[in-house]
Amino acid sequence: MLTGIQISVIGGDARQLEVIQRFSELDATVTLFGFDNLQNQFSGITKASLVPEALQTTDAVILPVVGTDDHGNIESIFSSSELRLLAEHLEALPRHAKIYTGMAKMYLKKLCAACSIGLVELLERDDVAIYNSIPTAEGAVMMAIQNTDITIHGSQCMVLGFGRTGVTLARTLQGLGANVKVGVNRPEYFARAWEMGFKPFYTKDLYEQVANIDLLFNTIPSMIVTAQIIANIPHRAVIIDLASKPGGTDFRFAEKRGIKAMLAPGLPGIVAPKTAGRIMAETLSTLILEDASTRRNV
Amino acid sequence: MLTGIQISVIGGDARQLEVIQRFSELDATVTLFGFDNLQNQFSGITKASLVPEALQTTDAVILPVVGTDDHGNIESIFSSSELRLLAEHLEALPRHAKIYTGMAKMYLKKLCAACSIGLVELLERDDVAIYNSIPTAEGAVMMAIQNTDITIHGSQCMVLGFGRTGVTLARTLQGLGANVKVGVNRPEYFARAWEMGFKPFYTKDLYEQVANIDLLFNTIPSMIVTAQIIANIPHRAVIIDLASKPGGTDFRFAEKRGIKAMLAPGLPGIVAPKTAGRIMAETLSTLILEDASTRRNV
Amino acid sequence: MLTGIQISVIGGDARQLEVIQRFSELDATVTLFGFDNLQNQFSGITKASLVPEALQTTDAVILPVVGTDDHGNIESIFSSSELRLLAEHLEALPRHAKIYTGMAKMYLKKLCAACSIGLVELLERDDVAIYNSIPTAEGAVMMAIQNTDITIHGSQCMVLGFGRTGVTLARTLQGLGANVKVGVNRPEYFARAWEMGFKPFYTKDLYEQVANIDLLFNTIPSMIVTAQIIANIPHRAVIIDLASKPGGTDFRFAEKRGIKAMLAPGLPGIVAPKTAGRIMAETLSTLILEDASTRRNV
Amino acid sequence: MLTGIQISVIGGDARQLEVIQRFSELDATVTLFGFDNLQNQFSGITKASLVPEALQTTDAVILPVVGTDDHGNIESIFSSSELRLLAEHLEALPRHAKIYTGMAKMYLKKLCAACSIGLVELLERDDVAIYNSIPTAEGAVMMAIQNTDITIHGSQCMVLGFGRTGVTLARTLQGLGANVKVGVNRPEYFARAWEMGFKPFYTKDLYEQVANIDLLFNTIPSMIVTAQIIANIPHRAVIIDLASKPGGTDFRFAEKRGIKAMLAPGLPGIVAPKTAGRIMAETLSTLILEDASTRRNV
Repeated sequence: MLTGIQISVIGGDARQLEVIQRFSELDATVTLFGFDNLQNQFSGITKASLVPEALQTTDAVILPVVGTDDHGNIESIFSSSELRLLAEHLEALPRHAKIYTGMAKMYLKKLCAACSIGLVELLERDDVAIYNSIPTAEGAVMMAIQNTDITIHGSQCMVLGFGRTGVTLARTLQGLGANVKVGVNRPEYFARAWEMGFKPFYTKDLYEQVANIDLLFNTIPSMIVTAQIIANIPHRAVIIDLASKPGGTDFRFAEKRGIKAMLAPGLPGIVAPKTAGRIMAETLSTLILEDASTRRNV
Repeated sequence: MLTGIQISVIGGDARQLEVIQRFSELDATVTLFGFDNLQNQFSGITKASLVPEALQTTDAVILPVVGTDDHGNIESIFSSSELRLLAEHLEALPRHAKIYTGMAKMYLKKLCAACSIGLVELLERDDVAIYNSIPTAEGAVMMAIQNTDITIHGSQCMVLGFGRTGVTLARTLQGLGANVKVGVNRPEYFARAWEMGFKPFYTKDLYEQVANIDLLFNTIPSMIVTAQIIANIPHRAVIIDLASKPGGTDFRFAEKRGIKAMLAPGLPGIVAPKTAGRIMAETLSTLILEDASTRRNV
Repeated sequence: MLTGIQISVIGGDARQLEVIQRFSELDATVTLFGFDNLQNQFSGITKASLVPEALQTTDAVILPVVGTDDHGNIESIFSSSELRLLAEHLEALPRHAKIYTGMAKMYLKKLCAACSIGLVELLERDDVAIYNSIPTAEGAVMMAIQNTDITIHGSQCMVLGFGRTGVTLARTLQGLGANVKVGVNRPEYFARAWEMGFKPFYTKDLYEQVANIDLLFNTIPSMIVTAQIIANIPHRAVIIDLASKPGGTDFRFAEKRGIKAMLAPGLPGIVAPKTAGRIMAETLSTLILEDASTRRNV
Repeated sequence: MLTGIQISVIGGDARQLEVIQRFSELDATVTLFGFDNLQNQFSGITKASLVPEALQTTDAVILPVVGTDDHGNIESIFSSSELRLLAEHLEALPRHAKIYTGMAKMYLKKLCAACSIGLVELLERDDVAIYNSIPTAEGAVMMAIQNTDITIHGSQCMVLGFGRTGVTLARTLQGLGANVKVGVNRPEYFARAWEMGFKPFYTKDLYEQVANIDLLFNTIPSMIVTAQIIANIPHRAVIIDLASKPGGTDFRFAEKRGIKAMLAPGLPGIVAPKTAGRIMAETLSTLILEDASTRRNV
């Protein structure tokens, strides 16, 4: 239980509702900023304006998954007014307070460093990335079904990368009956991919390997599906790039060659906001609880 | 090879292109009716108007998957003119000719019976129904991803029916990491579902079984998801009915109770026209070849 | 509950203990014949000698899975004295009584017919055969591991037959990472096997298909792995025949050619007597309960 | 190709035959020591006595998987004479030569260090350990089938550890239809195990988690299945310990409590020597080839 812990939730989307509900269940004291249009469906939860004084007793600040923009603005689908996180807010926080977000832009990182406030980026955690890989994989499957005229079952799929997202995606495609090639760059990944029933290959052989594929899913966050590679991909193939912006595909060349290629947006919040919210909620409550225990024991 | 066999293809959608291509590869003599707007991409294929004389030497007539409507009209996405199949066309056919379609309405059945022309309904065949169950299952998965805010992985899914479509769908959901209950009505289906890792139950216990589900997929073509059953389904649940029209769900009551319920359209032609077309093409070419061999041997 | 139902269990092996325990739990009145050496671990259970009078009030007679031999003798691992089922025993039974066994030899069939006593062969039931296919498949896996110097993972396996045992076995081998070919003789089996991720072929093409296999599992109860077929099997391959005696393999020729071939014994009772006993127990109690309800309602 | 590379193979078992054959195919110059009883089935391969002079031009020395014993003795199933590796042998080797084995005992490590000869322990490599995990898992399955009276399908299995062997074993048991709990100690393993369909738990909760299990497989190489844990394991359960000697189980207490517990021997060489040999062969040839290229390029 989080009884006595004060939590400030600033902005967000549908996912944040799961987070708020979880904190409410765990008996935390929760204050919402930027949720004007949310009908209060949670007991023991109050709303407030984002003034520094309101944060003076906060133990944990929860920002949206995408954090702030480059100027400190925070998006909230539950409010039309502006939310902006500034140095004065962080200075008002107790020294032990921490800020939690998905991924932090440079603005937020600098702000936290300058004010000596701990910053936790949840999507940097392997466990969170693995949990999120599940809605990502399902979103990729949806995109594949929508953008091809064949079934995934029986198709020739390729997954580039065998990390947190790649493993999940390869398993998902296999579960749907696809033939799955996996592009790796380490012998132990090669071995594991083979053990799991995929057809592994080293990415240095990517050019030859793409010659007969129907679907290419990239999870490697650097330019790998280059013009040269695309030149060897069949016209019927579809490229779905899941690496974070700007992806690892030469989209301009793909378009020129008439090959459908698309950069997937942040799929978890789109295809399964409730599941994505629960992942955040579980991780946040565990982390905040650990933090509170540590403080108590000191 | 189908050398010397004369085939008339009347109307259809993208699937028919796969059929035509296959016949062309097998060296059949193919005449297209209602394909005015199709740029001739196949060698050795001619177009004609649907007059009885044009059918006099035809061995096999291929209609679209949905056959004719109740007045003999045949749809074609490749033509804006009308196509109508009448007694005079069938009377022009050689006695050994056969008409192939997916499913035949009463009009077509009566017409064939009256003219003593063999009628083959491909979707009646178990093998075709099983092949088609694959794009159907993928379409159902797409609908589930689009219409829920959770992942299929980890969700509580229920599949009603364990026949040609039910087995495939249950396997597909399991492949995506769902917990899958299967409603059956025969002990051998119960046993097989258990062996395959599903949680089987008898449909007589449906009322109790729906209490905790997230997704309900019905494949049974009779009213089974009644108002009484729906009354016990959680509000969050989504019902996807895959049985042929009018489905097996009381959609009016579902709407009244605020539960999302939808009757899936013919998914194979929508989500995977190329695959669906190939299924037809393979089956048609096998059947027409067998027929030709039989005639030769007589 | 089976309160008031009288059940006579005559002979058997470890599996019968599960049956007896289940009846005891369901409050049936159970009498054991041929269990002299069994220490009475079940409450409310008595032992008796196999004299006709002892059967006069019996509702159900449970024989071992293998029934009687050709002379009416019944085996029991719990007794050293002889047990023989004769006409006089059946004549002593009430008219509504039934005899339950796994498979009945001609002696037992004739005896029941002559005395107008119902005979139920459990292994004839599809559900029981499917449940039993699970320990059979695990036993086959054990034999494969013991008799090859390669892993099943990555090996080329072939399963002949896609019925009650074939489906389970093919799935099991696939679950272990084998490449699994399935020999079928019906297009709907071909389609299902393909949907399930196997490589189906028609048994008419068996000769070509065996050329590269490591393991061949037969479930078809007629001579199919003939000398001609064996002549095309690699020397390294191992044949495991799961069809009931005498199997479907030319064992003599296999030996002559130096190919390891073995007829699997009744595996469920050997590799998993407890599971096999539970399968019997569940089915028997369901059947006897249904029978009792029917009688009451008449 | 390994043309021009000189390789000395000293002792070993059936696995070494695969290694020798692979080198022969790759055109290496191979000398065998301790293979007197092996009928020469490989072309271009010679046998020699283990005298220092015979090693003077060797590029790579291949020892058995278990290396030497504590006195330098090397086992060979193909010879009855003694083989002993001494400093004088290593001193005869060229400076660039390397010694390859599975795992090295202290004797061998010290000898190589003293003589400045490179030592490569293949089983230390993640890829080799993952490949070997496959025969290990199949061996564990065989032991489980042999030592229980239930099927793995439907049973409650527990795997301790989710590393190179644990992942493979958990997948294998799942592929056979078991319910698989996985004991982990890191949140990212917890997440991955959940994504893969297992029931993960933290090993700190092991005591509670063992209460209902049928089979416990340990892969953690330290005392984890203690007397206290065993006290909470059902009597019917079987413990199979796959960690390297002395395993992680209190075998003495298990025996006292009447719970079947066994330390699995090195399974790959037992259940699938050919596969295990191929794994070694592939890895050795890759490593030796890389080594040769490096030398050439220097």
